[in-house]
Amino acid sequence: MDFAPDARTTELAETVHRFLYDQVLPAEPTLDRQLADAPDDWTFRPIVDELRAKARAEGLWNLFLPSERGAGLTNLQYAPLAELTGWSQRLAPVAMNCAAPDTGNMELLAEFGTPAQQESWLEPLLEARIRSAFSMTEPDVASSDASQIGTRIRRDGDEYVVTGRKWWSTGAMSPDCRLLIVMGKTDPDAARHQQQSMVLVPRDTPGVRIVRPLTVFGYDDRDHGGHAEIVFDDVRVPVENLLGTEGGGFAMAQARLGPGRIHHCMRALGTAERALALATERARERSTFGVPLSEQGVIREWVAESRVEIEALRLLVLKTAWLMDTVGNRKAMTEIQSIKIAVPRAVQRILDRVIQVFGAAGVSSDQPLAEMFAGNRSLRIADGPDEVHLASLGRAQLRR
Amino acid sequence: MDFAPDARTTELAETVHRFLYDQVLPAEPTLDRQLADAPDDWTFRPIVDELRAKARAEGLWNLFLPSERGAGLTNLQYAPLAELTGWSQRLAPVAMNCAAPDTGNMELLAEFGTPAQQESWLEPLLEARIRSAFSMTEPDVASSDASQIGTRIRRDGDEYVVTGRKWWSTGAMSPDCRLLIVMGKTDPDAARHQQQSMVLVPRDTPGVRIVRPLTVFGYDDRDHGGHAEIVFDDVRVPVENLLGTEGGGFAMAQARLGPGRIHHCMRALGTAERALALATERARERSTFGVPLSEQGVIREWVAESRVEIEALRLLVLKTAWLMDTVGNRKAMTEIQSIKIAVPRAVQRILDRVIQVFGAAGVSSDQPLAEMFAGNRSLRIADGPDEVHLASLGRAQLRR
Amino acid sequence: MDFAPDARTTELAETVHRFLYDQVLPAEPTLDRQLADAPDDWTFRPIVDELRAKARAEGLWNLFLPSERGAGLTNLQYAPLAELTGWSQRLAPVAMNCAAPDTGNMELLAEFGTPAQQESWLEPLLEARIRSAFSMTEPDVASSDASQIGTRIRRDGDEYVVTGRKWWSTGAMSPDCRLLIVMGKTDPDAARHQQQSMVLVPRDTPGVRIVRPLTVFGYDDRDHGGHAEIVFDDVRVPVENLLGTEGGGFAMAQARLGPGRIHHCMRALGTAERALALATERARERSTFGVPLSEQGVIREWVAESRVEIEALRLLVLKTAWLMDTVGNRKAMTEIQSIKIAVPRAVQRILDRVIQVFGAAGVSSDQPLAEMFAGNRSLRIADGPDEVHLASLGRAQLRR
Amino acid sequence: MDFAPDARTTELAETVHRFLYDQVLPAEPTLDRQLADAPDDWTFRPIVDELRAKARAEGLWNLFLPSERGAGLTNLQYAPLAELTGWSQRLAPVAMNCAAPDTGNMELLAEFGTPAQQESWLEPLLEARIRSAFSMTEPDVASSDASQIGTRIRRDGDEYVVTGRKWWSTGAMSPDCRLLIVMGKTDPDAARHQQQSMVLVPRDTPGVRIVRPLTVFGYDDRDHGGHAEIVFDDVRVPVENLLGTEGGGFAMAQARLGPGRIHHCMRALGTAERALALATERARERSTFGVPLSEQGVIREWVAESRVEIEALRLLVLKTAWLMDTVGNRKAMTEIQSIKIAVPRAVQRILDRVIQVFGAAGVSSDQPLAEMFAGNRSLRIADGPDEVHLASLGRAQLRR
Repeated sequence: MDFAPDARTTELAETVHRFLYDQVLPAEPTLDRQLADAPDDWTFRPIVDELRAKARAEGLWNLFLPSERGAGLTNLQYAPLAELTGWSQRLAPVAMNCAAPDTGNMELLAEFGTPAQQESWLEPLLEARIRSAFSMTEPDVASSDASQIGTRIRRDGDEYVVTGRKWWSTGAMSPDCRLLIVMGKTDPDAARHQQQSMVLVPRDTPGVRIVRPLTVFGYDDRDHGGHAEIVFDDVRVPVENLLGTEGGGFAMAQARLGPGRIHHCMRALGTAERALALATERARERSTFGVPLSEQGVIREWVAESRVEIEALRLLVLKTAWLMDTVGNRKAMTEIQSIKIAVPRAVQRILDRVIQVFGAAGVSSDQPLAEMFAGNRSLRIADGPDEVHLASLGRAQLRR
Repeated sequence: MDFAPDARTTELAETVHRFLYDQVLPAEPTLDRQLADAPDDWTFRPIVDELRAKARAEGLWNLFLPSERGAGLTNLQYAPLAELTGWSQRLAPVAMNCAAPDTGNMELLAEFGTPAQQESWLEPLLEARIRSAFSMTEPDVASSDASQIGTRIRRDGDEYVVTGRKWWSTGAMSPDCRLLIVMGKTDPDAARHQQQSMVLVPRDTPGVRIVRPLTVFGYDDRDHGGHAEIVFDDVRVPVENLLGTEGGGFAMAQARLGPGRIHHCMRALGTAERALALATERARERSTFGVPLSEQGVIREWVAESRVEIEALRLLVLKTAWLMDTVGNRKAMTEIQSIKIAVPRAVQRILDRVIQVFGAAGVSSDQPLAEMFAGNRSLRIADGPDEVHLASLGRAQLRR
Repeated sequence: MDFAPDARTTELAETVHRFLYDQVLPAEPTLDRQLADAPDDWTFRPIVDELRAKARAEGLWNLFLPSERGAGLTNLQYAPLAELTGWSQRLAPVAMNCAAPDTGNMELLAEFGTPAQQESWLEPLLEARIRSAFSMTEPDVASSDASQIGTRIRRDGDEYVVTGRKWWSTGAMSPDCRLLIVMGKTDPDAARHQQQSMVLVPRDTPGVRIVRPLTVFGYDDRDHGGHAEIVFDDVRVPVENLLGTEGGGFAMAQARLGPGRIHHCMRALGTAERALALATERARERSTFGVPLSEQGVIREWVAESRVEIEALRLLVLKTAWLMDTVGNRKAMTEIQSIKIAVPRAVQRILDRVIQVFGAAGVSSDQPLAEMFAGNRSLRIADGPDEVHLASLGRAQLRR
Repeated sequence: MDFAPDARTTELAETVHRFLYDQVLPAEPTLDRQLADAPDDWTFRPIVDELRAKARAEGLWNLFLPSERGAGLTNLQYAPLAELTGWSQRLAPVAMNCAAPDTGNMELLAEFGTPAQQESWLEPLLEARIRSAFSMTEPDVASSDASQIGTRIRRDGDEYVVTGRKWWSTGAMSPDCRLLIVMGKTDPDAARHQQQSMVLVPRDTPGVRIVRPLTVFGYDDRDHGGHAEIVFDDVRVPVENLLGTEGGGFAMAQARLGPGRIHHCMRALGTAERALALATERARERSTFGVPLSEQGVIREWVAESRVEIEALRLLVLKTAWLMDTVGNRKAMTEIQSIKIAVPRAVQRILDRVIQVFGAAGVSSDQPLAEMFAGNRSLRIADGPDEVHLASLGRAQLRR
């Protein structure tokens, strides 16, 4: 057992850290300005392209992708880098082409795509020439139960016809998003986990109707393409657009979720670290009743509790990454569920405390905290709500 | 001891309940539409006027005001009515002219205003012909510590000259807001709690500059006039605009806070009740893995925990109201602090659970939950943060 | 609505308060000495008799019993008196003949007993000439599910034959305990809630075998008769010893539980108040690192949190009592479950904090805290564990 | 970074695991019997000697001691072994001569003892021919603040004279305990952390008076020598009995605490694992209302929450051990404080849940849970209470 990171991780982490402090954090006000200057524009703002160019020049590109197509890092090596990008969830992941949902989509295409599909979609995604969305969640059912999916994908000659309603297709409000990976049922009579398939639907296919943007606690997340509700109204794509095999949709979704969940947790820890750094700075500067916040018992207690939670959970995330690397995602299921449950809840507590440290500024847009809170809060729902994972993990433990 | 409400309370509660269900809740989508149709307009939307007319016709008007100027209710009688308005914080209080910050401002004017001040400002406020704001909080200091207030109110002949920067002046983004009650220091060298005074500043006085709207978790609260940052740049008002006495500002602010805090708590309980009602409905309609949510252990547990918290805290709020009525606000300080601490935190837990019941819909604008969460979260900061009250309450207990 | 206690309650509370401070609290060290002096003696210690005589002389006797047989108090009137007895759970309730399980047993005998049964058992219990136990819980089954009870009560001519194993028969280790009220199945084939009956079994009946005393966190509770495991080995009693009707056992047990649960909650609040009083005293006397505990943030926070929890829950207990008085125990079920869930958990948190205030003394017998903790902890299990009540309460709410 | 234990650790863990299951756990009922058979005897029971012989034969001896005098293991290697001994805190550590307070005392003697002191005391301790106690805590002061220590160690010619009152001298009730390491002030006028010294006081020295045994939640812990209150009444020892240097007491105490704290945490995790294993077994066997506990939502949730907490905190303990091995105890201070705060609190929550799973059996001596709870609860006080460490850790973080 050894808790020291390897040389490549250490080196990359330094580069990412420098990039974060020198380029990304100072670009946040620019992003805000560019968003304010173009109120109805959902395309990515110019600052994103600028940062991408710089990131690429530094070799900070596609770090999430384990194969030779990406940086070839293990999950364990990627973890501290992803954490650093969580300090600026709005800019750092997208700047380094490591942002969801493109990451998961690239993984799917890399693993299950045909050469033609890879050429059409994976290559431009790896180059960040286009963006993509993942259309699984539906408004009418509890999407944690895949058997309830209502969207139909019906074969009709050489085409698939997609009919259904999706929402929370993150990124899909942006015209930069060209590809929707859509999950639906090809065979509702098959065994429970073999009913679903995925098809690749170009966003400009006739019948694709972007209904509206959704908000998360009042935020439209326009900086990364928002969250769309989409109607698929007899949308036709050639059969070549099937991803993987018919009936393979559920298995592919599961394969996609493992890395997705751990990436979210890694970044969430970075968010917590930034919040804590902000709290520390504020506590040194402000006083009430003649005493600096940093010398008040409750502030010290909050900082200490937060520190302990972060340290313990980071180790659990790292161990999970190590297990995924050494025994595979399936055998790391207990750990993946554990961090999926524990990290966003802990980060929520930490953000709640830090908001309290900042007072009214904490809930406003003058600090990044409220937006962080909103984004993190939705992690407790996305990819399966806390209680589904708790029940599943508990069941597995009781079976042993 | 008797836990049954009196006849007048019962009767009024039924009227408010009917008004809420028949008029207010159905008007919420109308409000959303009217807001969407006039994106940059901060004036109150037409639906508010419609509801006001109906409320007034029902006798549901100025119920908060204890004197003959209002409905003449005790705090204990008002409590369940205020709770019901908390089901729709966006519309019910304003419809019944019981919305902060006007309520506190009317109380100040009724108690400390000269006849001329009452004629100019209290009368139109009681008629809801104008709105008002309260400018106390400042961006540069911890406003829970009144001694830190930076705004200066300097006498110059027959005028006061106000200089300073305020924020979180709720309502002041709206042109309907005509009056700002501004707290500042008239004598920085006086005893700590006699340095502050309040002056009445018409919003259109030269030198008043509305800098920008603030957001709460992404919400601009445009439906009730938003929250403004305001610069007072050598703003001159006649000395007649002094409210109360020079040096009386701190005491008046404290007097204003007692009722304000209990009103917030009453309404917060109504918010929690509505959330719980929504959760109950949802839990009956949705199923996961073949089992209705309403039959799943964790949902039952959440509902039970929420019910117990609401019941216990409602009683504490009612007892606080009773104490304010019978022994006065000062002697009810422990109880006022208790509910100020406990209610918003409990409501936050409840809203967090109900958001989880709703999944992704819970954080979106399709349900009122996320906006409720944001509003309630800010109660833990407004009028003194949790930890200031905890420390003060603990100190008082340890002294006994 | 009115939160002021009536005159009789106020007067009695003053008397009980005086009795507590003048007689009971000073008697605790005497009790400890008398216990130490007679290590294997399970009879009540002489100090108990002394206190009883004094309590009776003060009119503090059988206050729990609502009928003319007792003090004729309502639940609402009894509540603050019971709370005061909770300051010294070891001595105050027994001194005033208001101690479980005799209270519940007296209620059963008063309501369901025949005149002969009342003469034989109720009278001596009312006089505190004997003690009694209630034998319901069994080691082999989850006793919150009455359908699982294994003890058989078989009719054989003019006798009932009782066979089974019980435990947690509180008080039954003491030779002063003369009567066991035993719950068992007379008809395992009847409807689920009509299988059970209760019989009166004198403790010296042949076949009654006291197996062993049980401990609660290491405490044998010898001061109030301990907790016995008992085997009933073909124990024969005359049919006249049936309490109520055959098949009426479940309903009688439920009737018994309502008041029992609220009494426990009332006393638990008194326990919490005493703990808080001890913490306050300690915090004023001790210093660490040059600062009195009473001026340290965390101590203030604990005291404040505890105060708020006690105040809110006391009101819920009082309202529950009022409901039991006005609409009856059945209609007060939600409230009874609410306090059963919430009070012992809150008191546990409070005791845990106060133990921490006392450091090592807190877990020792030098302070009453650890024993209080143990007693209170078992309340979360007795009369149905937390989670059974949470599930039941949640289910009822979701049904509405 | 690598999360796999090394070969020696794996091998030793298997041996300890076998020893635990084959020898230790089956010996617990024997220990209970032997304790019951000799009610006033504080010497170690025969079963301990039997187990020691077996442990030694297996090479499971003095594993805690890093130097060649012990097993030569690193902290990281020892951690999983210590955890396993925590499954049976009453027997496993003592059987393997890895029980506090002897472990800390042996470390002190090994590091600071003279050859003569080592021959007299360390050798017999390493052989388990004698036991020892550590007398630091005092009843009259908050012992987390070393400056408050009241015991005086006055030099008088060739002797030191010790005067003072100590308590919580764990093990000292047993006649097997021969050595007391006593902390006191040699120079109250020196700098704050140079006032204290330690002397070796044979337990049979004239003037040493064992006042009484203390209890922890009703447990006297007679199986491992109890906890003594001791008066030192002009106790004279030769100056050769000084441990280390005059004024070096505080530093030695700190040096002793680092390993002590991590050992406690390691074992506490084992305690939690055993509790969880018991809960799992119980949940499979018991049913309520026709449903096995293992299929009830709340039980699954508890098990899942407990699993996550254990996994995260075990990693933090292991990393702390690794830091102690690689950068030293001082630089691992933040992590040592973190686990000291977090582990006992988490284990308390887990034990509380498991007690609830067991119902009334959980608080009794039929299950080890209540005794585990009592022991673990005292960890939140021993070696500095939670809040002292929280404040210290928070202060350090805010300083960075």
